[in-house]
Order: sequence, then C-alpha cells, then structure tokens
Amino acid sequence: MEEHRDRIRRLWIEQGFEHASHDVIEEAKRLGVPFRIIPREAYARKFKDSTSHIYLEQDEITYANPDIFLKDVSSHSGPVVCAFDGIYDPQNLGNIMRSAACLEIKGIIIPKDRACGITKTVTSVSRGGAERVPVVRVVNLARYMTDMKKSGFFCYGLDERGSVPLWEANLTGPVCLIFGNESGLRRLTRETCDQILRISTSPAFPSLNVATSFAIAVYEAKRQRVQKALIRDR
Amino acid sequence: MEEHRDRIRRLWIEQGFEHASHDVIEEAKRLGVPFRIIPREAYARKFKDSTSHIYLEQDEITYANPDIFLKDVSSHSGPVVCAFDGIYDPQNLGNIMRSAACLEIKGIIIPKDRACGITKTVTSVSRGGAERVPVVRVVNLARYMTDMKKSGFFCYGLDERGSVPLWEANLTGPVCLIFGNESGLRRLTRETCDQILRISTSPAFPSLNVATSFAIAVYEAKRQRVQKALIRDR
Repeated sequence: MEEHRDRIRRLWIEQGFEHASHDVIEEAKRLGVPFRIIPREAYARKFKDSTSHIYLEQDEITYANPDIFLKDVSSHSGPVVCAFDGIYDPQNLGNIMRSAACLEIKGIIIPKDRACGITKTVTSVSRGGAERVPVVRVVNLARYMTDMKKSGFFCYGLDERGSVPLWEANLTGPVCLIFGNESGLRRLTRETCDQILRISTSPAFPSLNVATSFAIAVYEAKRQRVQKALIRDR
Repeated sequence: MEEHRDRIRRLWIEQGFEHASHDVIEEAKRLGVPFRIIPREAYARKFKDSTSHIYLEQDEITYANPDIFLKDVSSHSGPVVCAFDGIYDPQNLGNIMRSAACLEIKGIIIPKDRACGITKTVTSVSRGGAERVPVVRVVNLARYMTDMKKSGFFCYGLDERGSVPLWEANLTGPVCLIFGNESGLRRLTRETCDQILRISTSPAFPSLNVATSFAIAVYEAKRQRVQKALIRDR
C-alpha cells in the first residue's frame, strides 16, 4: 500500500474476514487509509467481480500537481479549465471526462475529500477520456480558485439561478468554469466566483444534469473563441 | 395484453417456466408480441426486482400520433424538434429525455423498430422528463423527415464528419435536428438531411456521447433564437 498511498481511497473488508485480514488492516491504520467492514451481501453487490474478501479502492490515474498545473496552464493563450464542487457519482464524472477530452479543455479540478476520484468506473465510462485530460485534486477549492484568479483566470460559477445567461458572458480569456452537484454550488465556492452564469432552462423543469451543463458551457466557450478569431481575421 | 398492445415490446420468460406460461405465450403469439425464453441466471440479472417468472416489457408513455404531432408542432413559431436514428441504450435515451424537458424542445422522434422505446429505465433516468415532451414513433424515419421538410422544417443531421460547424448554421427557423448512434447516421437518413453539421471536437478523440451532442445542439438553437430576438428588438 505504501508506495502508492496517494492513490488509495479506501479499504473494504467483507464481514467475517476481519481476522484473516488483520495484517492488511494494521497497515491501513498505520498509513491512515480509511477502511470499512461491510456485510457479505453488500460486499458481493459492490464488488461483483472480486474473487477476494478485501478490496482496495484506488484511483486509476496520477493526479497533476496543483502548483505545477496552474503554472503550465497559465502559459497557454485563453485556456479553459473546469472545477467540480463535490461530484459523488462516478457515472457523471466519467461522462464529464469523456466530454472534457472531446472538447479539449486544459484540465479538471476536483476536491480531495467529499468527492468522487478517478476510479475504475470513471475511466471505463469516460472511454479513455480520463487519461487524456490533466486532473488536479485540491484540498480547498475556494483557495485554489483564489490562486487561479491571481494568475489571470476569470472564475464563472454555473447555476440555474445565475444572474447572467451563459451566452452573454465573455468567455474568450482564461476561464475557469465551476459546477456544483445536484444541490448547486456550495456557499464559499459561490462567493469566490467572479460571476454566476445560468443556462436557460424550463422554469418548471430546470434540473439539467451536471455533465450536460458542463458540455454546454465548454461548447459556448469554444464557440466564442472561434467566432471572435473569425471576426478578428476578417 | 390486448388493450395496450401498442405499448408492449416483448415478453420475457424464465427457462423452466415455459409450460406454466403456456397461456400467456399463446396470447403473445396471437397478438404478434415477440417473446424470448432466457436462462434463469440471465433472467434474474435482467429483472432483479421481479417476483414472477415472466416479464412483459412495455413502454411507459403514450406516443403521439405522427400526423397530428406534425400538424401541431408546425403551428408554433420556429419550433425545435429532434429525431434519433436508432438509439438502443435506455441510459442514453433517459438522459436525452431529461435534457429535452429542461431545454424545452417541442418533441422527439424515434423509429418504431431497432431502437429503444420509452421504457421504465428511460423514464427513471429522465427524472420525469420523459412525461413532459411529446414522443413520436415512426415506421420510416427518412419518409417522416421528408414530410417534415414539406411542412417547412429544415433537417440538420449531426455528425462529427459534418461539413459545417454547428455555430455557423442558421437554426432560428423550424428545425429538426437528427442524431445517429455511436456509429453515426444511417445512409438513407443522412441523404434525407438538408445539411450535415458537426460539433468541433478533438480529432484524436472525437466520440462525443449522443446525449451530449443533443444537448449542445439544442442549446445552440436556443442561443441563436434569443440573440436574434435581442438584435431585432434593439
């Protein structure tokens, strides 16, 4: 466990096998890896293909270093990066990673805690997209956004109650688009944004899926860049 | 079965229960309902929550009549409708129905055969969106597109090899946007389109999910309408 500690998220043990797994549990304790003992049925449901009684949940990619990433990405002209404020559903994150690779954004920022990492399900749903886009995990998203702003990024939060329609914002410079989960952006994240944008949806049925909002917002940023360049070159 | 025959898609029977299900199978044969006998394990996997040994797969909504739908929708000013050329995955179709309701399109057209209908999984994934948007099932999609064109619709196919970028097309009139499955639009569908549009994606990783392409294209149609109206009203 020790050599790839930073990729490990949790150790799962099937109930009844605590004793047999004693050494592994002790190592997890020593390294500060959270572990959970769950009933046999729950274990079988969760780890269908497992032939063992313990399962080490870990990330499938190596995350980029936050400081180096910020330096690298700032050197591009008008980069688009996106941050996610606590997505728990690997299906959603997998869809996001797939679109992120297709739409060629420069990187994804996710929180270290209380959020889904790049797990096996995520890479599988992403169809290989997860390996193509740098992912940064940060301890404190609001603080990292502040650093980005200092580096010249404009931080736009996306929320159905946003004050400005997406298509009215100027997305042609260095931008970070920030998305919440189903319950929206958290207070501190929202307050750190420069502006909150909305995608126009039905007032009676406004709940656009986060992976869909993400793809639409990135498309809009791309459209503005290309059309601005066309006007400039005329 | 008889009174809602048009909603029924298939009868599934667990192997070993053919004899016990004799009467139901006979009725299915009489009504022309396709039926399939599958091994116990496959049945258990497919119908986890079923307490019975037979399962009637059926649609969850009443489809709109194609002729009446076309008449109704043509009476709106600049309606957006979308057609799907053979989507098999209920997860995809559910995501599409959710976004369709959010983004307020006027209707969805799907083929009667070789395509997923509005099943229980679709309505569940759509979070209620499937009940909010009219769905039409047609026997021959290309022929229905021809009828739409006669009624004043411009038919745009979406394909990564399309000749025109999405943002360059004029989407402000009555439009029907047509999407293929993972392998693209079928030949006849493609040939019936007025124009083929593309969403700009990475040449090395162009495979945008159909539900994502759909949401982006509908967003673009909406953006153009609103921004055109703003310019007109100035």
